[in-house]
Amino acid sequence: MTDHHAETRDLGRLDAYWRAANYLSVGQIYLLDNPLLEQPLEIGHIKPRLLGHWGTTPGLNFIYAHLNRVIARDDLDMIFICGPGHGGPAVVANTYLEGIYSEIYPEVGRDREGMRRLFRQFSFPGGIPSHAAPETPGSIHEGGELGYALAHAYGAAFDNPDLIVACVIGDGEAETGPLAASWHSNKFLNPKTDGAVLPILHLNGYKIANPTILGRMTDEALLRLFEGFGYEPHFVEGSDPIPTHQAMAATLDIVIGRIREIRQGTLADGMAQPRWPMIILRTPKGWTGPKEVDGLKTEGFWRSHQVPLSGLADKPEHLAQLEAWMRSYRPEELFDEAGRLVPELQALAPQGDRRMGANPHANGGRLRRELSVPDHRAFALDVPEPGGVQGEATRAMGQLLRDVIRENPRSFRLMGPDETASNRLDAVFEATDRVWMEDILPEDVHLAPEGRVMEVLSEHLCQGWLEGYLLTGRHGLFSCYEAFIHIVDSMVNQHAKWLKVTRDLEWRQPISSLNYLLTSHVWRQDHNGFSHQDPGFIDHVVNKKADIVRIYLPPDANTLLWVTDHILRTYDRINVVIAGKQPAPQWLDIDQAAAHCRAGIGRWGWASNEGDGDPDVVLACAGDVPTLEAVAAVSLLREQLPDLCIRLVNVVDLMALQPKEQHPHGLPEEDFIRLFTRDRPVIFAFHGYPQLVHRLTYKRTNHDNFHVRGYREEGTTTTPFDMVVLNELDRFHLAIAAIDRLPQLGADADRARRRFQERLAEHHDYVRQHGRDMPDVADWRWPGRGTAAPFD
Amino acid sequence: MTDHHAETRDLGRLDAYWRAANYLSVGQIYLLDNPLLEQPLEIGHIKPRLLGHWGTTPGLNFIYAHLNRVIARDDLDMIFICGPGHGGPAVVANTYLEGIYSEIYPEVGRDREGMRRLFRQFSFPGGIPSHAAPETPGSIHEGGELGYALAHAYGAAFDNPDLIVACVIGDGEAETGPLAASWHSNKFLNPKTDGAVLPILHLNGYKIANPTILGRMTDEALLRLFEGFGYEPHFVEGSDPIPTHQAMAATLDIVIGRIREIRQGTLADGMAQPRWPMIILRTPKGWTGPKEVDGLKTEGFWRSHQVPLSGLADKPEHLAQLEAWMRSYRPEELFDEAGRLVPELQALAPQGDRRMGANPHANGGRLRRELSVPDHRAFALDVPEPGGVQGEATRAMGQLLRDVIRENPRSFRLMGPDETASNRLDAVFEATDRVWMEDILPEDVHLAPEGRVMEVLSEHLCQGWLEGYLLTGRHGLFSCYEAFIHIVDSMVNQHAKWLKVTRDLEWRQPISSLNYLLTSHVWRQDHNGFSHQDPGFIDHVVNKKADIVRIYLPPDANTLLWVTDHILRTYDRINVVIAGKQPAPQWLDIDQAAAHCRAGIGRWGWASNEGDGDPDVVLACAGDVPTLEAVAAVSLLREQLPDLCIRLVNVVDLMALQPKEQHPHGLPEEDFIRLFTRDRPVIFAFHGYPQLVHRLTYKRTNHDNFHVRGYREEGTTTTPFDMVVLNELDRFHLAIAAIDRLPQLGADADRARRRFQERLAEHHDYVRQHGRDMPDVADWRWPGRGTAAPFD
Repeated sequence: MTDHHAETRDLGRLDAYWRAANYLSVGQIYLLDNPLLEQPLEIGHIKPRLLGHWGTTPGLNFIYAHLNRVIARDDLDMIFICGPGHGGPAVVANTYLEGIYSEIYPEVGRDREGMRRLFRQFSFPGGIPSHAAPETPGSIHEGGELGYALAHAYGAAFDNPDLIVACVIGDGEAETGPLAASWHSNKFLNPKTDGAVLPILHLNGYKIANPTILGRMTDEALLRLFEGFGYEPHFVEGSDPIPTHQAMAATLDIVIGRIREIRQGTLADGMAQPRWPMIILRTPKGWTGPKEVDGLKTEGFWRSHQVPLSGLADKPEHLAQLEAWMRSYRPEELFDEAGRLVPELQALAPQGDRRMGANPHANGGRLRRELSVPDHRAFALDVPEPGGVQGEATRAMGQLLRDVIRENPRSFRLMGPDETASNRLDAVFEATDRVWMEDILPEDVHLAPEGRVMEVLSEHLCQGWLEGYLLTGRHGLFSCYEAFIHIVDSMVNQHAKWLKVTRDLEWRQPISSLNYLLTSHVWRQDHNGFSHQDPGFIDHVVNKKADIVRIYLPPDANTLLWVTDHILRTYDRINVVIAGKQPAPQWLDIDQAAAHCRAGIGRWGWASNEGDGDPDVVLACAGDVPTLEAVAAVSLLREQLPDLCIRLVNVVDLMALQPKEQHPHGLPEEDFIRLFTRDRPVIFAFHGYPQLVHRLTYKRTNHDNFHVRGYREEGTTTTPFDMVVLNELDRFHLAIAAIDRLPQLGADADRARRRFQERLAEHHDYVRQHGRDMPDVADWRWPGRGTAAPFD
Repeated sequence: MTDHHAETRDLGRLDAYWRAANYLSVGQIYLLDNPLLEQPLEIGHIKPRLLGHWGTTPGLNFIYAHLNRVIARDDLDMIFICGPGHGGPAVVANTYLEGIYSEIYPEVGRDREGMRRLFRQFSFPGGIPSHAAPETPGSIHEGGELGYALAHAYGAAFDNPDLIVACVIGDGEAETGPLAASWHSNKFLNPKTDGAVLPILHLNGYKIANPTILGRMTDEALLRLFEGFGYEPHFVEGSDPIPTHQAMAATLDIVIGRIREIRQGTLADGMAQPRWPMIILRTPKGWTGPKEVDGLKTEGFWRSHQVPLSGLADKPEHLAQLEAWMRSYRPEELFDEAGRLVPELQALAPQGDRRMGANPHANGGRLRRELSVPDHRAFALDVPEPGGVQGEATRAMGQLLRDVIRENPRSFRLMGPDETASNRLDAVFEATDRVWMEDILPEDVHLAPEGRVMEVLSEHLCQGWLEGYLLTGRHGLFSCYEAFIHIVDSMVNQHAKWLKVTRDLEWRQPISSLNYLLTSHVWRQDHNGFSHQDPGFIDHVVNKKADIVRIYLPPDANTLLWVTDHILRTYDRINVVIAGKQPAPQWLDIDQAAAHCRAGIGRWGWASNEGDGDPDVVLACAGDVPTLEAVAAVSLLREQLPDLCIRLVNVVDLMALQPKEQHPHGLPEEDFIRLFTRDRPVIFAFHGYPQLVHRLTYKRTNHDNFHVRGYREEGTTTTPFDMVVLNELDRFHLAIAAIDRLPQLGADADRARRRFQERLAEHHDYVRQHGRDMPDVADWRWPGRGTAAPFD
C-alpha cells in the first residue's frame, strides 16, 4: 500500500471516529431510547425537554479526534481544556469512546444499554450537566461562565514540563476580558521547566444570536493580532470533511513538531520567550447538522447554537430530519450489534492514562503531594507582653512563604498583581524571583524565567493561573489588595461550585485549597483613598457552601503565621485570610496564638477586668485594626470608669460566629453564651460591613444586644485613624457606644463620654491641620499589665 | 519670523506649559507651604506624610499640553480620560492651569495662596484623592481600579458625533482583562453617528515594582498587535523634551487629520469599519524627576512610581534634591510674583467650555435631557383575575423598551452579552438593530451600524460602555443573566462610589441611573445548570450606600412594566430589577400593579383568608418564582386546612424590608408590624440567599419568627420545579414549614404534612422518569376566586 493509500485509509478511520463522536453527541441531546436507531425513530424515543447545545460540538469532536491521533502516535502527555460553553456532549462522547467513561461510571457501559443511559442522562434530572463539568472525566474546566479556559490551561502547564495542554477557545469566549488578557500568559511560560499550551482558537463564527467579533475578522487581521501577542498562528479552514481532516492533520504535525523544537531548545539560545504555535480553526457552527430548518439557514449559522430541530412532537418533518441527520453518520458502521465501538475505531484512541479522559493531570488530586511546610514557629515574633512590641504581620508571613518556596521548589507558586513587595512579602525574593520571559535589563530586580512569584496586573490571570495550578495537583497562594479581589468574585463562585460538586465524586481526589491573603485592606487604604476601600469580598464568599469556605482575621503576626500554616495544609477549600501589612501592636506570643487560633475565638483575659460573673459589657473584635481599636477602647473605659467590668473577645475564625448547624466551625451555643453572655451589651468592632456579623449571629442568644461597628462606606484619602473615625469604629466611638448601652453608670459615664467626644474633636482638628494622626493615638500601646492569663 | 522659528518658539512655550504642570504636580505631592519656592526649601514646607504617585504624572502632563495645542488651534470638542492610576496630580494641575479649577473651587485661586492650598489639599485629610476622581473637573473616570478607561471612552463617544475622547491607557492597566477586551470596541463605533476615540497607550515601562508586559514588547510586536485589533498605530518615543515635543506635535497633527478624514467620509464607501488612529507613546517613568536616588536608578524605572524622594526629615540631601528638581522647572519663568501663570502660557489653554476641565460632556448631567418614556400602560397584560392568565414578563418590558428607543433615537442604548433575544426583549428589534461595524452577510439578522442594541460577550464591556454613556448625560439599561452579573461586581463598586461622591459636589449635575435587568435568573437556570445559578449580586449591592441602591423583584409582567417606567426616570442610582422571561402566571392588572409597586410591599387579599385580626401564619414572598410557590402553598394549605387563617405578603421593593432609618424606602415600623404581625410565624419565600432577608430585617419586630427559604447553593441541570424542590423553596416545603410552626393544629395538620411529603416523593420519581415536571405542578393555576380585593 502506498503512503497515499495509507493516509487515505487513516483519515477515513479518523473521519469515522469523528462521526461516532458526533452521533453520540446528537444522541445525548435528543434520545431517550433506541440508541442505535435499530428501529425507525419515533417521538417516544425523544426527550420531552430538549436541552443542549449542538453548535460547538462537532468542532470539538473534530479537534479531539485529531489530538488522539498525535497522542497515540507520539505517546504524548496531553490534557484537553474545553473552553466553549455547553461543550459537554463532545467531551462526554469522546471519553465514552475512549472507555474511561464506563470505567468511572460502570452503569454507563460500552453496550446498547450503556449507550441508552449515556443519552438519557445528559441534561436530564438526576443526570449530568451540559458543560464539561466536574462530573466529566478529563476535565479541569467548566465551560459555564466563559473567559477562563486559557488561564486555566497555562496554570496547568506551569511546572509540568512533559505536559501539553490543548486548549480550545471559542470565538464567543474570545470576546471576554479575562480571555483577551490571557493571551499574554505566554510571557510567563518557561519552555525549560514548564509544559506547553496549544491554544486552538475555534472560530465557528457565531454566538447565541450574533456573529462573533473574531469570526468576522480577516485572516490577515487575526494573523497580525496573534503574532502581536507573540504566537505563531496556523490556519485550518474547511467544511468538506476529508480535505479539512487533511489540513488539520498536517497542521497538527507541524505544530507538535514546533513544540518539540522549542522544548528541545533547538531555538537560538538567549531567545528567552519562544514563539509558541497556535491553531486558528474555522469550521461551520453546527457542522454536519441540518443545513436548513424550516427554510432558514442553520448549519454555519447561529440557529444551530442549541437544538437545531425542536418541537418534534408537533412537527413530524423535524423528527424525520433528525433521523436522517443521525443516520448520516452511518452508526451501523461505527458500532457493532451490541452497541460497542468497532475494534478498528477503538484502536484509534490512546491507551490507559494517555487517554485525555484518564490523564491524571486532569484529576490533580491523584498527583498531588503534600506540601512540605516548614515550622512556622521559627518566624514567630517575640511578644513578651501584649501590645508591648510592634510588628508587620505580612512580613513574618513572607518569611514562612520564602521557606515554603525553598522546600517545594516545583510545586508552590505565589500569585499577585504586582504587589508582593508592596504587601511586605518580599522575603520570598531571598528564595526566588518573579517569573519573567521578556527581556531582562541590567537594572531589573528579581526577575528570572525560573521565578516562583507570578505578578501581572490582572487579578483574573492570577486567579485563573492559580486555579489551573491547583486543579492539576499543586499548591499556591494569591495575595491581593482587599478591595480589588472583587474583580474575581465570579471566578470564585465557579471554583466554589466546582469544589462542591467534586466532593460528591469519589473518583475525584482532593486538591489543595484556594488560599487568599487579602492585605492592603480597607482600614489602611487611607493613602489610596475611597476607590481602594471595600471589605465586601467576605460577604460574597459566605454565600458559598459552608463546607467550602473559611474566613480568618488574625489580629497580629503570630496568629497570621499559625493561620498560614494551617490553610496551606488544607484541601478542597477556599480560605480567605485578611491581615495588615503595616507596623502594628502584637498581642500574642506564638503559643498563645496557636491556642487562640485553634479555638477560633476567645476571651483575652489580660484586656478584661471582669470578676467571676458576667461582665457589664463585652467588647468583641475581629480584624487587626478593629482589635487595636477595641483594646484601646477597653483601656480608655478602664481608665475613666475603673469599676466597670469589661470582657474583651477576639474572633480569628469568622465562621465560629455561625451556629454549629450552619457551619462546621460554628461555636456550640453554650460556648457562645459563655463568651457573649445571655443579656449583656456586646460592642463588636468588625473588619468588614457590620451587617455581616448580624447575618452570622442572628440566631444566637443575646443577638439583640449586639451592636456592631464596621465599614459603612465612608472614606477618602486621609490618615489611618481618621479612617476608623469616619466609620465610627475608633476607640472613642466604641467607648461611647459601650457607655450609651450602660444607662446605670450615671455621672461618671457622662463625664467620660464628654471626654471622648472632646478627644474626637481634637483629632478632627489635628489631622486637618497637621496631615497626620495625633502622636498619642498613632503610637498608642496597651498600658495595662494584666495579671490574668494573656487569654483564656 | 520663519516657520522654523515660529515652530521653535511654539514648542518652547509648550514645553514651558508642561514644566508648569510638572511643577504643580511635584508641589502637590510634596509641599505644605512655600509654593513658589520664594524661600529656600525647608523641612517645615514639606508634608508630614508623602502620599502620591509621580511616575505617571509627567507623561500625562505632556499629553495634556499637546492635546491643548490642537484643541485651541482647531476648536476641537475633546475630553480627557486618565486611565493610569494616581494620575490625579496631573489632571488637577492642568485644570488649575486652565482656570476652571479655581472657577469651581474659588478657595483654590490663581495666586500664591491658591497654589498653596492646591498643594496642601492633595492627598491630605479633608482634601482631594490622588486619582482623577469625581472631585476633579473634566473627569468621568476614576483611575483607582484599573481596566475600564477605554470602555468608558467608547461609551462617552457613542452618539456624540462631534466629540473626540482622548483616552490615556497606562501599560499597567493594559495588562488587565477588561482593558484587553476593550480594544475591540472599535468594532462598535459608527463614524457617521458616533464621536472618535483616540487611544494613547502610554508605555512608561513599569508598574509598582515590575516592568510591564507591553512596555517590554518590541515596536514591531506592538504594531502587529494593534493593527490586528484594527487600529493604525503611530509611535512617539523620547526622553529629550524638545525632540519629543516635535515628534508628539507632528504625530498629533497626523492623527487629528486622520480622524477628520474618517469623519468626513473620505474613506472608501462600503468600508464599514475605519482604521482609527492611536498613539503609542514611550517616555520614561518619572520623566524629568530625579535620575538617581541614593545611587539607584529612579527616572525611567519603577522606583519613581510613587514618591521618588522620601524620608526628607532625616535626609537633608533628599530635601536638597527635591529643591533642585522643583527649581529645574524654572517656576520663576512660569508664574508671576503673585503666583499666577504668565499670560503667554495662559494663552495656550483652550477657552471656555473647550477646556478639557470644563467640557460639559465630562459633567454629563449638564447635557442630560429627560428620557421620553412612553406610557407603559399601553403594554399591560390583561389580567382579569389573579393567576388566571400566563405571560412572559420580559416580553412586555421589551415592547416598552422598543418604544423608548423609538422616542429617544440618539440617547438610549440597551446593552447585553448576546442575550437580548434570549431574554425575550426581542420586540426592540422592531425598532432597531444590533450595532455591527464588521462585515454584514446576507443571512445576518438585525445587524446594522446604526443599531441601538449593543451585544458583546463581555459583561465588562457592556458595563463600561454604559457607564461612559451615562456619565456623559445619556440613558440606558443593561440586561444580563443573573449569575454572570457578578463579573462586574467590582465595576459596580466603583460606580457606586463615584455616585456617592458626586452627590456631595454641587457642581456635578445628576446623571441617569445605572439600570440592570437581571433575568434568566437562578430559578430558571434548570437547563444551563449549576454554573449558571447565583442570586448573590443583590447581596453585593446592598453593601453600597442606601441612597444609591434600589432592588426590585416584580412578581409579574405588569409590575415589571411599572418598575421599568419608574427606574428609567430616576437619576444617580443603581437600580437592580430581577424578573423572569418564562411564561408564568400573572397576578395583578396594571392598576393593581401600580398601587402595589408604589407601596413596594403589600398584602394580597385575594390569596389571604384571614379575618379581622392577625392571621395564624404569614406567607411572604419576593421574586416571581417564590411568589408562585408561595401562592401555591397558600392554596394547598387552604385546601387541606380550611380553618387556617393565612395572609400572603408580596415584596417588590426589597429595601422596604429595611428599617426606615437604614434606607429611605424602608417601611415604617408600624406598617411592618401591620403586615408581618408581632408574633405570628412568617414563612418567607425569597428569590436569593435566605440570609439576605435576615440581614435586612434583623432589627424588625417579629424577626425571631421569620423563617426564610431561598437559594442554598443546590442545583444542577434538572426541571424548573425540581430546582425549587432541591432548595426547599417549593410549595410543598413551604406548606410543611408553615405547619411545623403551628403546633396547635393537631391531626389534620399531620395528615396534610404527610400528603405534601407524598407529593414531593411523587415529584422526585416523576421528573427522574419523565424528564419533566408533573403536569399539575407545571400548569398549576390559582384555583381560588377570592372575594376580597385583589390586594390591599
